[in-house]
Amino acid sequence: MCLPGTAEAVRERIEEEGAPTVTRGTLLAGGAAAAAAAMFPGAAFGGGRGSGGPSRRFKRMQDLTHLFRAGFPVFGGPEPTRETFFDFPTDGFYSQRWTFTEHSGTHMDAPGHFVPGGRLTPAIEADELMRPLVVVDIRRKAASDPNAMVTVDDLRRFERGRGRIPRKAIVAMNSGWDAKVNDSLAFKGAPAFPYNFPGFSGEATEWLIENRDVAGIAVDTLSLDPGNSTTFDAHFAILGADRYGLENVANLGEVPARGATVVVGVVPWEQGSGGPLRAFALW
Amino acid sequence: MCLPGTAEAVRERIEEEGAPTVTRGTLLAGGAAAAAAAMFPGAAFGGGRGSGGPSRRFKRMQDLTHLFRAGFPVFGGPEPTRETFFDFPTDGFYSQRWTFTEHSGTHMDAPGHFVPGGRLTPAIEADELMRPLVVVDIRRKAASDPNAMVTVDDLRRFERGRGRIPRKAIVAMNSGWDAKVNDSLAFKGAPAFPYNFPGFSGEATEWLIENRDVAGIAVDTLSLDPGNSTTFDAHFAILGADRYGLENVANLGEVPARGATVVVGVVPWEQGSGGPLRAFALW
Repeated sequence: MCLPGTAEAVRERIEEEGAPTVTRGTLLAGGAAAAAAAMFPGAAFGGGRGSGGPSRRFKRMQDLTHLFRAGFPVFGGPEPTRETFFDFPTDGFYSQRWTFTEHSGTHMDAPGHFVPGGRLTPAIEADELMRPLVVVDIRRKAASDPNAMVTVDDLRRFERGRGRIPRKAIVAMNSGWDAKVNDSLAFKGAPAFPYNFPGFSGEATEWLIENRDVAGIAVDTLSLDPGNSTTFDAHFAILGADRYGLENVANLGEVPARGATVVVGVVPWEQGSGGPLRAFALW
Repeated sequence: MCLPGTAEAVRERIEEEGAPTVTRGTLLAGGAAAAAAAMFPGAAFGGGRGSGGPSRRFKRMQDLTHLFRAGFPVFGGPEPTRETFFDFPTDGFYSQRWTFTEHSGTHMDAPGHFVPGGRLTPAIEADELMRPLVVVDIRRKAASDPNAMVTVDDLRRFERGRGRIPRKAIVAMNSGWDAKVNDSLAFKGAPAFPYNFPGFSGEATEWLIENRDVAGIAVDTLSLDPGNSTTFDAHFAILGADRYGLENVANLGEVPARGATVVVGVVPWEQGSGGPLRAFALW
């Protein structure tokens, strides 16, 4: 086992995951916080400074959310639809009406999605929605095997290169699948179930719960399990352990493998089995 | 004009706004970040530390979002509905289907809601969704006048007590109206339009745009304008200036008057005139 920064770690990481990802999150504005603080000693200038920047505490922000659109590919059931409901000529303003099932777009799977009596969306505490983000890159093997899985070996290899996965983190799979989202057939990997896309193995999910006490797992595909799974082991493991999953997450190649914090802005859907959300990585 | 911390400022603030609000945001876990950093020098331990806490950078987090529920009061049109779409006995899992218009629940008004050709939800940059939060407390006058407005005088008084409103902030009205949300008639203040609830005056909205370059305004009521407005001056001012509004915001009495950062997790609704969201205050 080698620590980060050694030649072995760097070589291993590059060989296994490709060259280090260039992070391209929005550079947040910095500025006149110090000047403002000097003007008003004792005042709280947390977010409230004069520079116009959103936060003194994070430097970068990356959206992790796909456009929520009519026709977004779903695992089963109807795709989302929208219609113009109010419009300028008749109403003087514009608004749409939406209809969709909860597992559409970038969304959460709450424990109650698979576990009768399990927690539903509003019961997920705010505290669980802001967590360390860890991104495990399996793009290389996913390119040759569409049903590739994040395995315990992948997690051990990640830790050899990047250090131990912190407790209560969200561990995300970056398979590169988010680039296919506008082509439903490519994103699903088959016209009908069983599909073909990457996911977590049940064993790796259990390992993360038992050994790293994760808050949840996240994927850039339609399902926590690989597309050809008929047993949904990753779903049963994570939701059965009262943790949540995130599906159809975007832009994981744009954030650091570790060191970011994810904010999971899931709308608190009443009796929700999960549901659409906005997520950001901050670092 | 007196600076914060002077006796005058404190006395004025207490007289005008009542006793200082006790902030009750979730206390975020602290911990072993330093120990972890020492173990892995050079590694990024931003959110990814060993303590399990969500962030080393903020200490408190407050949800600003109402439960998104069937029957949530709306300004016009149908209220949201939900139905169980998949369920355990037949499908082995549980999920709902939702139907709603975009101005339901805690939601955004995008510029295109009132301005033909104005920006729609997906065009609001991530950078605009993480901003300094300023909370102007008008609970006292709202208790005696349901159509009370945030006025330019209120904003000047706020600044005398709290310091200058920072650039690019979201300025929120706390009228105390969020406590009425489960009683539609009380929340709307009338069975049909015109309603009775507080909002921003058009003049105050213009003042905030022209003099403080705000990113947007937020209210704890159904509309940016007071409920009896027939001219929608605040809407036209803020949306016409290519900024956004937030409506039905919750728990503004639980966050500091300034010093917090708001994260506006609006789902990126395709062609959205705004739409449901999850918002958090961090400080």
